[in-house]
Amino acid sequence: MKAKVMVLLVERKFGELRGLLIDMPAADIAALIAEFPNELLPILFRVLPKELAAETFVEMEPNIQQNLIEAFSDMELKAVFDQLFLDDTVDIIEEMPANVVNRILRNSSHSTRAAINEALQYPKDSAGSIMTIEYVDLKADMTVGQAFATIRRTALDKETIYTCYVVDNARKLIGVISAKTLMLADQDQLVGDLMETNVISGLTTDSKEDVVGQIRKYDFLALPIVDTEHRLVGIVTVDDAIDVITEEAERDFAIMAATSPLENSYFSTSVLTHTRKRIIWLFVLMISATFTGMIISHYEVAVAGLPILVSFIPMLMDTGGNSGSQTSTLVIRGLATSEIRPRDIFKVLFKELRVSALIGLALALVNSVRMFILYHGEEQILMLILTTGITLFFVVVLAKCLGCCLPILAKVLHLDPAIMSSPMLTTICDACAVSLFFWIATRLLHIPVM
Amino acid sequence: MKAKVMVLLVERKFGELRGLLIDMPAADIAALIAEFPNELLPILFRVLPKELAAETFVEMEPNIQQNLIEAFSDMELKAVFDQLFLDDTVDIIEEMPANVVNRILRNSSHSTRAAINEALQYPKDSAGSIMTIEYVDLKADMTVGQAFATIRRTALDKETIYTCYVVDNARKLIGVISAKTLMLADQDQLVGDLMETNVISGLTTDSKEDVVGQIRKYDFLALPIVDTEHRLVGIVTVDDAIDVITEEAERDFAIMAATSPLENSYFSTSVLTHTRKRIIWLFVLMISATFTGMIISHYEVAVAGLPILVSFIPMLMDTGGNSGSQTSTLVIRGLATSEIRPRDIFKVLFKELRVSALIGLALALVNSVRMFILYHGEEQILMLILTTGITLFFVVVLAKCLGCCLPILAKVLHLDPAIMSSPMLTTICDACAVSLFFWIATRLLHIPVM
Repeated sequence: MKAKVMVLLVERKFGELRGLLIDMPAADIAALIAEFPNELLPILFRVLPKELAAETFVEMEPNIQQNLIEAFSDMELKAVFDQLFLDDTVDIIEEMPANVVNRILRNSSHSTRAAINEALQYPKDSAGSIMTIEYVDLKADMTVGQAFATIRRTALDKETIYTCYVVDNARKLIGVISAKTLMLADQDQLVGDLMETNVISGLTTDSKEDVVGQIRKYDFLALPIVDTEHRLVGIVTVDDAIDVITEEAERDFAIMAATSPLENSYFSTSVLTHTRKRIIWLFVLMISATFTGMIISHYEVAVAGLPILVSFIPMLMDTGGNSGSQTSTLVIRGLATSEIRPRDIFKVLFKELRVSALIGLALALVNSVRMFILYHGEEQILMLILTTGITLFFVVVLAKCLGCCLPILAKVLHLDPAIMSSPMLTTICDACAVSLFFWIATRLLHIPVM
Repeated sequence: MKAKVMVLLVERKFGELRGLLIDMPAADIAALIAEFPNELLPILFRVLPKELAAETFVEMEPNIQQNLIEAFSDMELKAVFDQLFLDDTVDIIEEMPANVVNRILRNSSHSTRAAINEALQYPKDSAGSIMTIEYVDLKADMTVGQAFATIRRTALDKETIYTCYVVDNARKLIGVISAKTLMLADQDQLVGDLMETNVISGLTTDSKEDVVGQIRKYDFLALPIVDTEHRLVGIVTVDDAIDVITEEAERDFAIMAATSPLENSYFSTSVLTHTRKRIIWLFVLMISATFTGMIISHYEVAVAGLPILVSFIPMLMDTGGNSGSQTSTLVIRGLATSEIRPRDIFKVLFKELRVSALIGLALALVNSVRMFILYHGEEQILMLILTTGITLFFVVVLAKCLGCCLPILAKVLHLDPAIMSSPMLTTICDACAVSLFFWIATRLLHIPVM
């Protein structure tokens, strides 16, 4: 496909090229265009008919959008943005540098500019920032026939016509009615008699996770968003909900792997950006890990006296880290999906204490048998087994308690719970494991302390 | 709410209770019912009207569904399952033990049983296993008026009426038309003239991730699923897609944190089940980590001779593990969202090599400065710095290469790439880091080998 497009481009057969692209879905065209060098993007893009061009534009990655905007004339810029739904415009604006934003705003109509500015005022990550204002609103005293007439007249500019919202004269949300209900009703029935009055809605200031959670829970195609006086101001549609779910999960995956989330795809992110996104956390964790090293240095004499001690350190560190991440991942995801709330901390802690006691006991037991078989000739073997076993048990319990408390603490402090995941937790658990191990060892085994 | 329901239950005011519940969404009723003890579940459930009862049943967790089924009479069981959409029935059956499945099948009509059995034959995780067969199909020679009549007649039994599928006489999928297009058209226009003929569809044997990827990419409300002869056999709707996206992400989160995914929610999973889900991986990883310990044991004489060596081990182990997980997480998620394909391995490897070289250099540099400041009085300090720096560089490069290759290798071998995430990778990187460190140390520093 790429080769075919390239040939048509070089031969300047733009009519044929348009014919080829016009039947493709916008997402596929966007992916195809992304494979061409930057200088060819505007030519390719100009081949597309106006509406398809706008749809394709929305599907592109931010860096390609920016390249295109910079190549556009003001007229072209206006033509593309006039075709976009407002929520898409706002999404794009949020990713662009200030000079590009100014150019977009300068080329928008007065009313669009006002709407964009209003949308930009909602806090990032709030329902207000992801909602669209292009929805169908009906009145309770309309007949089904009148409702259909309204829908037909305005359908082209609306993001969804399948869920319609009923507002009173003060624009307060009083009901919701599906296109299905309307289609199954008689023409002269009243919307007010057919609508569902028990409406589930979100507030503009709700977090976008909460809004998306509602859509997922109730299998909605859209959720209405109201202001503090219960006036309808927008809707969040299911396709945007999917984007939020995907983004949030990918963001958590990234942060839990100690990287900053990428703005573009893996391949279109440069080596330098990849490096920049990953190196900061690695620095922080490397420096933190030297504390564990310092603790070991502190027991240098003990190490020299009984070097076999050191060989248990990796196992204790890894088991602590793994036990902790199991719990922290469950808690972080539980907080993200609102299954766990900060007030549940004692419930979670009690459960984790019991789980960790069982796991700690079992692991200590298996490890004791293993050590007895491997080292039964060594001097002080029983005390060595006891030292390792007690440390293992307490490290598992401590790691699971930290794995439960630290993410909840982060949430309470309005930090992202995901930063308290595996890498950070592992570093903390490492230091605890090593301290505990040497503390017990110097007490149970006959070795000099320093 | 719970207290109110409890009072009405105890006072046996079932009419009032029904009035209270009837206005609540099914998902909320399911959550409320889950808070009551097992023996009260059937009574609560019987209060609900038939259709709401079925909707509520679908929203419950598998363990509560099983409790209810076991309490149902055959007649009640039939009443509930008759109301369910087929794909929901299949989902429930897949979670139940064999005796419960048999009871459900015994109480289904002949045609339902045949359809269930067919659905159960699709491989787990295939598009066929999550699709529903309740869709609207139209013919190309119908007028819009006739199409509406068909939709109205069958709407109640269909999962979505907003996307309709056009099939020929051999049931081959030839077009798709939205309810919006139908609503905006004249009554006597032909479906064949209005429909979109460039239909994007999935195969029954496609993986469910692929199908869901299409829905996400094209913002569909439903994707049609065809057999190998392009006959329409079902659809996957956007609400099921959201469930798959959520489940897949949670599954990856769980596996990447070295636990088996939970079937029920965090709180409704017992301490014993939590323990069982987590302990196996901890055992495996604990035993693997002892290899790293054995490598250290092997260099016991070196450790005794220069104990300060040991204090660098945690930093090297952690940095290796963290660098590796950064890459493996990106690759695992890239594979899950099909952004990265196994054939991209060399592209990814080349990128990771450059990123890791940059990161390795930077970390080694910072670490050298840090060591020089902290330890500049120690003997052989320059060689010690060189040893640590070289090890650090190669550990980062190696960890990132493993983090890229191992998940892709797992994918090629039809294993879940997520098993090659942080915990497993950390254990492998640990052993490499320690071996490399002592190998270089015994060559650069004047210490005895064994």
